[in-house]
Amino acid sequence: MILILKNGASDEQIERVIARLEGWGLQTHLSRGTFRTIIGLIGDESQVSQETLSSLAGVSQVIPVLPPYKLASREAHPESSVIDVSGVKIGGGQLGMIAGPCSVEDRDRMMRIAESVCQSGANLFRGGAYKPRTSPYAFQGMGEKGLELLREVGDRFGVPVVTEVTDPRNVELVAQYADMLQVGARNMQNFVLLSEVGKTSRPVLLKRGMSATIADLLMSAEYVLSEGNPDVVLCERGVKSFDPATRNLFDVAAVPAVQGLTHLPIIVDPSHATGRPDLIPPCALAGLAAGADGVHIEVHDCPEEAKSDGPQALLPEQYEQISQQMRLMADLLGKTISPLADSASTPKNPS
Amino acid sequence: MILILKNGASDEQIERVIARLEGWGLQTHLSRGTFRTIIGLIGDESQVSQETLSSLAGVSQVIPVLPPYKLASREAHPESSVIDVSGVKIGGGQLGMIAGPCSVEDRDRMMRIAESVCQSGANLFRGGAYKPRTSPYAFQGMGEKGLELLREVGDRFGVPVVTEVTDPRNVELVAQYADMLQVGARNMQNFVLLSEVGKTSRPVLLKRGMSATIADLLMSAEYVLSEGNPDVVLCERGVKSFDPATRNLFDVAAVPAVQGLTHLPIIVDPSHATGRPDLIPPCALAGLAAGADGVHIEVHDCPEEAKSDGPQALLPEQYEQISQQMRLMADLLGKTISPLADSASTPKNPS
Amino acid sequence: MILILKNGASDEQIERVIARLEGWGLQTHLSRGTFRTIIGLIGDESQVSQETLSSLAGVSQVIPVLPPYKLASREAHPESSVIDVSGVKIGGGQLGMIAGPCSVEDRDRMMRIAESVCQSGANLFRGGAYKPRTSPYAFQGMGEKGLELLREVGDRFGVPVVTEVTDPRNVELVAQYADMLQVGARNMQNFVLLSEVGKTSRPVLLKRGMSATIADLLMSAEYVLSEGNPDVVLCERGVKSFDPATRNLFDVAAVPAVQGLTHLPIIVDPSHATGRPDLIPPCALAGLAAGADGVHIEVHDCPEEAKSDGPQALLPEQYEQISQQMRLMADLLGKTISPLADSASTPKNPS
Amino acid sequence: MILILKNGASDEQIERVIARLEGWGLQTHLSRGTFRTIIGLIGDESQVSQETLSSLAGVSQVIPVLPPYKLASREAHPESSVIDVSGVKIGGGQLGMIAGPCSVEDRDRMMRIAESVCQSGANLFRGGAYKPRTSPYAFQGMGEKGLELLREVGDRFGVPVVTEVTDPRNVELVAQYADMLQVGARNMQNFVLLSEVGKTSRPVLLKRGMSATIADLLMSAEYVLSEGNPDVVLCERGVKSFDPATRNLFDVAAVPAVQGLTHLPIIVDPSHATGRPDLIPPCALAGLAAGADGVHIEVHDCPEEAKSDGPQALLPEQYEQISQQMRLMADLLGKTISPLADSASTPKNPS
Repeated sequence: MILILKNGASDEQIERVIARLEGWGLQTHLSRGTFRTIIGLIGDESQVSQETLSSLAGVSQVIPVLPPYKLASREAHPESSVIDVSGVKIGGGQLGMIAGPCSVEDRDRMMRIAESVCQSGANLFRGGAYKPRTSPYAFQGMGEKGLELLREVGDRFGVPVVTEVTDPRNVELVAQYADMLQVGARNMQNFVLLSEVGKTSRPVLLKRGMSATIADLLMSAEYVLSEGNPDVVLCERGVKSFDPATRNLFDVAAVPAVQGLTHLPIIVDPSHATGRPDLIPPCALAGLAAGADGVHIEVHDCPEEAKSDGPQALLPEQYEQISQQMRLMADLLGKTISPLADSASTPKNPS
Repeated sequence: MILILKNGASDEQIERVIARLEGWGLQTHLSRGTFRTIIGLIGDESQVSQETLSSLAGVSQVIPVLPPYKLASREAHPESSVIDVSGVKIGGGQLGMIAGPCSVEDRDRMMRIAESVCQSGANLFRGGAYKPRTSPYAFQGMGEKGLELLREVGDRFGVPVVTEVTDPRNVELVAQYADMLQVGARNMQNFVLLSEVGKTSRPVLLKRGMSATIADLLMSAEYVLSEGNPDVVLCERGVKSFDPATRNLFDVAAVPAVQGLTHLPIIVDPSHATGRPDLIPPCALAGLAAGADGVHIEVHDCPEEAKSDGPQALLPEQYEQISQQMRLMADLLGKTISPLADSASTPKNPS
Repeated sequence: MILILKNGASDEQIERVIARLEGWGLQTHLSRGTFRTIIGLIGDESQVSQETLSSLAGVSQVIPVLPPYKLASREAHPESSVIDVSGVKIGGGQLGMIAGPCSVEDRDRMMRIAESVCQSGANLFRGGAYKPRTSPYAFQGMGEKGLELLREVGDRFGVPVVTEVTDPRNVELVAQYADMLQVGARNMQNFVLLSEVGKTSRPVLLKRGMSATIADLLMSAEYVLSEGNPDVVLCERGVKSFDPATRNLFDVAAVPAVQGLTHLPIIVDPSHATGRPDLIPPCALAGLAAGADGVHIEVHDCPEEAKSDGPQALLPEQYEQISQQMRLMADLLGKTISPLADSASTPKNPS
Repeated sequence: MILILKNGASDEQIERVIARLEGWGLQTHLSRGTFRTIIGLIGDESQVSQETLSSLAGVSQVIPVLPPYKLASREAHPESSVIDVSGVKIGGGQLGMIAGPCSVEDRDRMMRIAESVCQSGANLFRGGAYKPRTSPYAFQGMGEKGLELLREVGDRFGVPVVTEVTDPRNVELVAQYADMLQVGARNMQNFVLLSEVGKTSRPVLLKRGMSATIADLLMSAEYVLSEGNPDVVLCERGVKSFDPATRNLFDVAAVPAVQGLTHLPIIVDPSHATGRPDLIPPCALAGLAAGADGVHIEVHDCPEEAKSDGPQALLPEQYEQISQQMRLMADLLGKTISPLADSASTPKNPS
C-alpha cells in the first residue's frame, strides 16, 4: 500500500507513522515531494488493513496496489477457470445456458418447461424452492418439496439443476438435491451464507448485488474460495439506477472488466437485469458479444400464472428463438455451448 | 390497484382481463379514455400481486394505491410508536442516543468507552460481537465472548446494549445477552434473518440497505412485524452514490419521508452515512433538525487501534462535545433524551 | 392523464378538481374505489402539465398515459427514421460508424488518422474544435481553425464530419463546416443550444446526459424536432454509477428500450461509456448485438500526446481490428454499413 | 501527482516515463516496492494533465495530491469568503435567505409574494424570467418583461433579486436588471455560460448539477473565478438517486464537505432537493444545522396556478412559519441573517 500524508504533516507525525509501520514488520520507503510526503510499504501487508492505516494521524489517503481478493484474482491464477457443473462446463470458451422458471411450481409445468428449454439448448435448469421475496405476504417457495421436484427434472432430462439457497441452515439439504447452489443478489454480502456454501463441494452461482461494485463481488467470491470451494461462477444481473425505464441497469461492461480481474467465469442474467421480456433477447446477445461465459434466462409457459416474477419471463417459444440466435452468436465468437452429459450426475437422489 | 391498458388493447383482451380479476373475487370499474382504458379494482387485493397483474396480456401499467406494508404503515396505525428498549424510550419525541465502538474489543477499553459515552448522555451502548466484513481475512468479531463483555457493560452502567446479529442460528443466543438486536444494512433483505428476529421479544434496530428505497426498508420492517414483534426502530445510514467524497450519501430527507409513511421511529447514523469524523457532528445535528428519533454514533478512544471502522469513529471527547450540541438542538425542537433507567434490565445475565 | 386522489379527499375537493379540469376543456371520468377515487381525463391534455395537476388540492398522484414527446415518439411515427448525413445513412438497418480523435489537433495527425479509420470502414469522421472541459485550465479546442481542418479532412477523404457545438452563438458557424452537429452529454439539457441546432438543416448527434433518463433524452430530442429539424441521432454513452471500475456505466439496454419508444436511431459510444481502451471492443460489439444503429469510437495514433481524452482512445490498428469484428457482427445481424458516397457533400467549403 | 506503475512494468517503460516527465520540466522520485513501482512528481504540474499521465505506457494509476481547482480551494484562501449581494452578506456566519416563486408571473402576484417573504425575513428575492424546461411545450418564462418586473420588486422592497441566466447572449442583459445571476443545475457544466457570467461583476449563484460530484461543482466555480469574478455562492439542491420517494436526494453532508474544501459559501435548496412541500421545512432546518450559509425556498401564493414547479412551492404562510424556526436555529448556531440594506442597490434600473 501507499500512504499519502496530509499537507503539513509534521516530522513527528511522519516518524510516528513509520515507527508504527515498522512495528508491524513492514519496510517503508519515504518520498518527500514539494506538496506531499508519500510512504510506500514493502513486505507482507496482510496484517494491516487500509482502514487502520487511514486512522493514523497525519495520513491523508491510503492507496492499495494489490487487490484484496487473493484467490479470486487473475494475478494469482492467470488462466481462466473452467467450472464443471455435473458435466457441464462453464468458462474458457464454454457457455453455460441456464433456463427455467423463477419458482419451482407444479410437477407437470416443471416437466413441460424443462423439456422445452433443454430441446432449445439450455444446459442447466433453474427453479427456486426458497424464494427471497420483498413482501412477507408473497409466495415464499415450495421448500424441500420443490427441491425434490427439481431433482426429478434433473434426473429425467439429464440436466444439472441450480437453485437458490437463502438460509445457512438449509445449505446441506439443498446441496443434497441440487448440482449448483445459487446465492442471490440480496444475499451477496450475507457472509454467513457465503461461508456455508464455501464449505460444500457444489459449484456456486454468485449473483452481483444491486449496488455491489465489481470489487465487492470479487470479495464475496473470495469468501467462498477461502473456505475451500474453488468453483464459483459470477453473474451480472443489473445494478440500481435512477432510470425507471428498466428494473435494473444491465452493466454489460462489467463482463470484460471482471474477466480482466479474475479467473472465474461470469455469466449474464438479462431477465433480472432488465425486468422486461422485450429487452431480454437483445441484452442476452449483448452479454455474449461482450464475452460472457453464459446466459441465465427465466422461462415460464404462462407468465400470468407464475407464482413469482412472471412479467420478466420468456415463453418457451421465445426462448427457442433467442437460443438459435445465441448459438449463431456463439459460433461467431468461437465459443461452444457445453452439451448435456449422456448420464447426468444424480447426487444422493433421495427418491 | 389501477390497471392501465396498452394503447390498442383489444376488446377481447379487456374482457379477458376483467374475467380474470373477477375470478379472483375483485370488482372492476372500467373507464375508457380517448387514448387509454383503465380498470380500477375494488375489493380485497391481498391475493393478487402487482407483478401478476402486470403479466396479463394487454396491461401496460399497474399502479398500486395502497402501500404493500400493512402493519408498518401509518394509515394502519396513525399514532407514532414509542419503542421501549429496557426502559429507554425511542419515538414520540423521545430520542435514542446510541454510542459505542464498532466492534466489542478488550474489557478495559469497553468499560472506559462506555463510562465516557454514558456520562456524555448516550442512553444505549453499542458494540459488534459478530461483524459482517467485506473481506474474509478481516477481524470477524469476538463472538459469544463479545456478547458477555457487552452484557457486563450494560449491567455495570445500567445502559441497554444493542449488537448486530448476522446468522439466524445465533439469534436466540444474541437475544439472551442484548437488549436490542441490530440487523445491518447488508442484511436488510436477508429475509430469513428478519423472520428470525421477528420471532424474538427483543426490539430490533433495522438499518437501511445501501441501495434500498424507503419502500424496501418498510417492507423489511413488515417482515419483522408480521412475525409478531412490534418493536422496530429504523435507521438511515446512507445510500450508494456516484460521489466518492463521502462513504455513502446521507439521505436526511428520508427521515421525514419515512415518518410520513410509518408509525415506527427512525434514527440516523452519521458515522456510516459519511465515513468521515469531520462530517459526523454536522450530520448528527442535521438528522435531529430533520426530525430523527435518535442518533447512532461510533466512538472509540484510539481509532488507529480499532479492530474495525476506526477512521469513522469519534473520540470520547468529540462525542461529549457533539452530545452537548445535540442536547441544545433537542431542547430547541422540544424533544427529550430518554434517561437511563435507575436499574437497567438484566435479561438472563449468564455471568 | 389519470389523477389518483388522496385517501380521504373530500367531496368538495373532488368537485373542485373536476370543475378545474372541465374549465380547461377536458372531459372527466370519475371512478370511486374502496380506498381511492380516480379521475381519468379525456380530451386535449396539451394545455395542462402534470405538475399543475399535482398541485390541485386532494390529488395524490398524476399518471401520464401518453409520452410528453410527441414528434419523437414511435406512436406518432411508427416507422424507423433513417437519417442521411451527407449521403451516409443511419437507422433502419444501416449503421453509422463514427471514428476520430477527441480533439482536432495538427493537420498531419488528422490526415493520418482519417485515412486509417476510413480504410478500416468508418463512414463518419469526428473531432472536437470546441471542447467542453471540466477544468478552465485544460485545452479548450482549436476553434474555427479546427473546423477548417475538419472540413479539409472531410473533403479529402469524402467522409462526412461531425463536431461538437457548445455555444449557441457558434451554431451557424459550425454548421457551415460540419455535416453533423454534436450536442454533448453535458449540454443535453442546454435547451437554448438545442433550440439553436433545431433551427439549422444539419443532422444532430444528441448524446445522453450522464444522469438523464431515457425520457429526458427523448424530451431533449423533442426540442430539436419541435424547431423543425427532423434529423436527430441519439447516442448512449454511459451514465453515472457508484462503481469506479468504469468511467461511466454503459446502459446497453437503453438501446432497445429507446428503439421501442422512438423512431429515431440510436448509436453507442463505448469510448466515453467505459473510459477504458480494453473495454471498448467488447462494448462496441455488445452495442451492435443489442441493436444499435451505429458505433462511435475515439481513435488517436499516440494517446499519450492527445490533447484530451487520450486514455480512452483506441490506436488505429486496434480500430481496424474491432472494425473487422463489427462487420462480421453486422452481417450476422443483417445490418449494413452505409458506404461513403463517391462524392461527399462539401457544404460552403471556405478554403 | 503520484504515478503507480503496472505490475510488471519493464525497466525500459520506467525509463521512458521518467524521460517524458523530465522533458516536461518535472523532477521525479522513484520508489520500487515489492509489487509496484511508484514515481512521485516534484515541480510545477500545471502543464500536465492526469489523463495524459494515465496514457503513458506502463502507468497503472495516477493519484493527484493537489485539488485541480486553485482559486476555489481553501488551501489557496483559508478564510471563508463573504459574498456581498447589493448589501446582503452571505458566508462567514451570515445567512442568505432566498425566497420567491419559480417563475416571474404577473405583477400583482410578484408584489404580494415579495411583500410577504420580505416580512417573513427573506433577504433575497428570486424569480425566473428565462426558464430551462424539460419540455419545449412548457412555459419558457416571460423574458425581458420578467426581468423588468423583478427589478421593480427589488426596488420597491429594497431587496436584492436573483434570477437564472440560461443563454450566454443574455448575460449582459440579465446583469443589468438582477443583483445576482443564477446558473441552474442543468447548466452547471455549460462552460460557455460559466465563462460569460465570470466576465460580469454580479455575484453568481451556482447550483450543483444533478449528478455532479463535489469536485465537479468546485471545478465549475473555478471557471467563474478564473474569469475574474470572485463572487460565487454554491448551492446544494439534490442529486439523482434510485429512490422515487423524493424528486432528488438532498445531499446535506455536501455542505460541511464543501466547506472543508473551499472558502466559498454554500446554501441549500430544499425545494428542488425534495420536490415535496412537506419535506421542505425539515430539510431547510437540516441544512442550517449542517452549517449551510443560507436557504433557498420557492414560495407561491397559489401553487395550482403557478406556471412552473407549483407542487414544490410553500405557501407564504408556510414560509413565515419555517422562517421563524430558521431564525431560532440560526440563533442556536450563532449565525445571523444579514438584514436588508436601508436603500437597496438599484443597478442601472432602466425604468
